[in-house]
Amino acid sequence: MVDLNADLGESFGIWKLGDDLGLLSIVTSANIACGYHAGDASTMRRCCAEAARCGVRIGAQVGYRDLPGFGRRFIDMDPAQLTDEVIHQVVALDGIAKVEGGQVGYVKPHGALYNAIVDHDDQATAVVAAVCAANRALAASLPVYGLPGSAWLSRASEAGLSVVTEGFADRAYYPDGRLVPRREAGAVIEDVDLVVARSVAMATGRTIKAVDGSVIEIHPHSICVHGDTPGAVDMAKRIRRALTEAGVDVEAVD
Amino acid sequence: MVDLNADLGESFGIWKLGDDLGLLSIVTSANIACGYHAGDASTMRRCCAEAARCGVRIGAQVGYRDLPGFGRRFIDMDPAQLTDEVIHQVVALDGIAKVEGGQVGYVKPHGALYNAIVDHDDQATAVVAAVCAANRALAASLPVYGLPGSAWLSRASEAGLSVVTEGFADRAYYPDGRLVPRREAGAVIEDVDLVVARSVAMATGRTIKAVDGSVIEIHPHSICVHGDTPGAVDMAKRIRRALTEAGVDVEAVD
Amino acid sequence: MVDLNADLGESFGIWKLGDDLGLLSIVTSANIACGYHAGDASTMRRCCAEAARCGVRIGAQVGYRDLPGFGRRFIDMDPAQLTDEVIHQVVALDGIAKVEGGQVGYVKPHGALYNAIVDHDDQATAVVAAVCAANRALAASLPVYGLPGSAWLSRASEAGLSVVTEGFADRAYYPDGRLVPRREAGAVIEDVDLVVARSVAMATGRTIKAVDGSVIEIHPHSICVHGDTPGAVDMAKRIRRALTEAGVDVEAVD
Amino acid sequence: MVDLNADLGESFGIWKLGDDLGLLSIVTSANIACGYHAGDASTMRRCCAEAARCGVRIGAQVGYRDLPGFGRRFIDMDPAQLTDEVIHQVVALDGIAKVEGGQVGYVKPHGALYNAIVDHDDQATAVVAAVCAANRALAASLPVYGLPGSAWLSRASEAGLSVVTEGFADRAYYPDGRLVPRREAGAVIEDVDLVVARSVAMATGRTIKAVDGSVIEIHPHSICVHGDTPGAVDMAKRIRRALTEAGVDVEAVD
Repeated sequence: MVDLNADLGESFGIWKLGDDLGLLSIVTSANIACGYHAGDASTMRRCCAEAARCGVRIGAQVGYRDLPGFGRRFIDMDPAQLTDEVIHQVVALDGIAKVEGGQVGYVKPHGALYNAIVDHDDQATAVVAAVCAANRALAASLPVYGLPGSAWLSRASEAGLSVVTEGFADRAYYPDGRLVPRREAGAVIEDVDLVVARSVAMATGRTIKAVDGSVIEIHPHSICVHGDTPGAVDMAKRIRRALTEAGVDVEAVD
Repeated sequence: MVDLNADLGESFGIWKLGDDLGLLSIVTSANIACGYHAGDASTMRRCCAEAARCGVRIGAQVGYRDLPGFGRRFIDMDPAQLTDEVIHQVVALDGIAKVEGGQVGYVKPHGALYNAIVDHDDQATAVVAAVCAANRALAASLPVYGLPGSAWLSRASEAGLSVVTEGFADRAYYPDGRLVPRREAGAVIEDVDLVVARSVAMATGRTIKAVDGSVIEIHPHSICVHGDTPGAVDMAKRIRRALTEAGVDVEAVD
Repeated sequence: MVDLNADLGESFGIWKLGDDLGLLSIVTSANIACGYHAGDASTMRRCCAEAARCGVRIGAQVGYRDLPGFGRRFIDMDPAQLTDEVIHQVVALDGIAKVEGGQVGYVKPHGALYNAIVDHDDQATAVVAAVCAANRALAASLPVYGLPGSAWLSRASEAGLSVVTEGFADRAYYPDGRLVPRREAGAVIEDVDLVVARSVAMATGRTIKAVDGSVIEIHPHSICVHGDTPGAVDMAKRIRRALTEAGVDVEAVD
Repeated sequence: MVDLNADLGESFGIWKLGDDLGLLSIVTSANIACGYHAGDASTMRRCCAEAARCGVRIGAQVGYRDLPGFGRRFIDMDPAQLTDEVIHQVVALDGIAKVEGGQVGYVKPHGALYNAIVDHDDQATAVVAAVCAANRALAASLPVYGLPGSAWLSRASEAGLSVVTEGFADRAYYPDGRLVPRREAGAVIEDVDLVVARSVAMATGRTIKAVDGSVIEIHPHSICVHGDTPGAVDMAKRIRRALTEAGVDVEAVD
C-alpha cells in the first residue's frame, strides 16, 4: 500500500502552472500551495473544491514567503517568524477547504524549506512548532510529510506528530538517502521506464540504485509525482497503473 | 451602551504603525489587519495574543491586497475574487487567533474597501458572500461593521448577517450620513474637545453637525477611534473617559 | 506603412507567459513589461537582449503595481505617485536595455492603465508627466502609444510628446472608437480571417465595422498583436504576411 | 579625511523609517534604498531630490528582494539572477536621481547581502558583475562600498572597480575585522561616548578594541552612521562634530 502525492495549486494570478485536474484523477493526496511560494486565495479555493469533489486528501504545502523565487531559495529567517508563517499557511488553507466541504489532512513543506529542514535543526523545530500550534487551533492531529532520516521528521516524531515518509521516483539519491540537488547534473531522472520501475521498487520495499551505483532501500509511505509538464502527468499515470499492476494499493495514508 | 473599536496590527515587517498595546487598554473591539493591506503572520499572532490577554474582542479587518497603497486605493477587482480574498483573510486570522486562545468575533472592511462598498453593490455583495462562507467554514455567525445606510450593511442584513453600525467621532459627515473623503479639507477633525463631544453625542443618540452645518443623528453601535499617532491614543483615552462619565457603558456588542 | 507591436516579457519568476521569441520574428516594436504588472529583472534583461539582437524596437510597457491582478484592475491611485511609478518603470527598463546594447524607444501603458487614461484625465496627465520627466533624465524624446481620441494622447500631444496611434485587430470597437471591454461578450474577435482582414483594412486606411454594425475608420500608426497562446502567434504571423502582400511596409515608427 | 554615509529612503508606502532629512544635514553620502528591501518609487524620488538639494552624494543601496524581511535574511539565490536584480536597482535609482538633477555616485550592498558577500564568493562575484554592467549602461565608473578584507571588495578590485572601505562606529568587531552579527549580545554599541571615540579613532588611523579585547586597526574611507531612531541622529551629529574637532575633513570620497 502506498500513497501518491503531488503539488497542486501552484498558479499565481494570470500565470498557470501544472495540470491540477489531470493530477487529481491520479493522486490520493494533493499538496496545495498556500500563497507563500505560489497560489492565491482563488487558486487555493478552486483547488480545494476540486480535491474535495475528487475525494483526494488535501495537504497544506507550506513554503518560504518568496513568490519571485517560487520558494526554491533557502531563506535564513528567524525560526519564530517561520513558525508564525507556517501556522498562517496551514490554518488559512484549512478554512478555505472547509468552505468547500473539505479540510486540511496533512502538512508538507515545499522546495527550499523541504530541503533545508532535512538538516537545519532550528528551522525544522520551527515548522514542527507550527504544526503543533495549528493542531491545537484546528483541534486536529495533522501528520507531516518529509524525507526519511531528516531532522524534520525526527523533531516531528519527538513532538508526537505522525510522520509520513516520502520517496521521489524521478530524483537521484545519494547513498545516505539524501536527494541530489536539482542544480546537479542527473538530479532529475527523465527516463520514464526507469522512473516507473523505481516507483514500484520503492512501494514494494525493494532497493533502488543511488547515484554512485550503490543500492539503497527507501520504502516510503508516499511517493511524490509531478505535474508541471504534460509529460509529467503521463508519467504519473503510468506510475499509478504500474503500482496497481504490481498489486500495490494506492490510497491515502490514514 | 456603545462599543469602541480601533485598527490594530497594521505594522509590516520592520515597519511599525500605531500603538497596539496602548489601544488595547482603551477599546473593546480590535480590528486586526490580515496581511492584505497591512500586517503579516507574526504581527497577526502577536496582536491576537495581546487582544486575547486583554479580553478585547478580535475582528478581521479585511482589505484589498495592496501593501504599497495600504488598502487606501479603490481596486476595480472581480467580485468573485474579492469574495475569495476576504474569506482567506477571515479564516486565516481566526486560525491564528485560536492558536492564542481567541477567535475572530466580527468582520470590518478597511480603507478603500470600506468606502467602496458604501455604494458599490457588486463589491458589497462579494464581501457579504465571503462572510457567509467564512461563517459556514468556522461554524460561526460573525457580525459585520459598517457605515449606517451603506449598501454593504443592507446586503449583509438581507443575507441574515448581524450588522453593527459605526460612527467616526473625528471625521466630518455629509448631511446624508456619508463620510467626507480624507482628501477633502476638513475631513478629519483635529480639535480634541470637539471629537470627544461628538463621541458622547453619538453614543447617547444626540445629533451632531454635518459639514454643511445641518444636524444629523448617527447613534451607532460602535465608535471608531484611532491610534496611529501618540495624540490619537490620548484622544481615544479621553473619549473613553467622557463616555463613562456620561453614563455610557463601553462594551463589545453581543 | 504600419508598425506591429506586441506585449513581451510578461513572465514572472517561474511562471511563463507568451512566446517572446516567436513574436520577435514578427513584430517591429516590443512592449516589454517593467516589473509592475509582470516581469522581473531577469525577464526584462533577457527580453531586452533578444529584442536588441532581433533589431526590434524596445518599448516600456508600464502598468499599475499589481502582480496579483496582472495590471488589469483599475487602481484609483494618487496621480503624483503614478507619475513616480511610471518614471521608475521607464528608466529601469532603459538602463537594463543599455546593458544589452539597446535602449527604450517608446512608452506604452498596459491593461487597466491603458484603458483608464482614455478618459481619466488626472491619471493621463500623470503618465504624461512621467514620460516628460523620463525624457529629461534620459536625454530622450520617447513617443507614446495609445488609443486614438484618448485623453492620454491629447495630454501627451499638448505636452510636446510624439504620439503613435494604435489599433487592435482582434478587438471589437464601439462606434466612437472606444474598445469594447474584455468582460463583454464579443469583445475579442477569434475568427482569424476576420482579424487578418481588419488588420489590412486598418493599415490601409479603409473602414472596419464597429460592434453595432456602423463603419469606423481607425488608420493607426501601429497595430497591436498578441502572443499569449500558440494560436495568437500564428495569427500574428498571418497578419504580418497579409500586410506585406497588401503592399504595406511593416516597420517601426520613426 | 573621511566620508560619512547613512542609509536613507527605507520607508515603504505608509510606513516611515528613519529621519532622512535629519541625516542629510550630517552625512556626505546617502545610501538610498532601491525598492528591493525597502523604498518605493516615490520614496526614491523624494530622497534623491533632497540629497541633490543638500549636495549629498547619492549611492544605490542594493539588497535582496525581500520587503517582508527588510533584506536582513540571507537568500541563497542564483548568482546570475542576483546580477540582474542589482543592475535593476542601480539603473533605476540613477534614472530617478537624474529626474531630480542628481545621479548615482556609488553602490553599497545592504543588510544580509552586505554580510553574505564578505565570504560568499559566488554572490560577491555576481554583485561585481552587476556594477560593471551598470557602469557600461550608464557610462559611469561607480565605486563600491564594503567591509575591508571582504571577498566583495577583492573581487571588485580585481574587476577594476574603485573600492571604498567602510567602518561601523557602533558595531563590535572580531579580531579579524569581521562584524559581530546583530543577533549576538553586544553586537551594537549603545554607549554614545564610546561610539564617538571609536569614530575618531577609526578616522585618524588609530586602533580600536575588538570584542575579545585585542586591538585592531580599521582606518576606513567611510564611516557608516545610523538614523533609525531619534537617538541615532543625535549620535550621528556628535560623531560629525567630534571628527571636525579632531581635524578630520568630512567629505565624500572622490
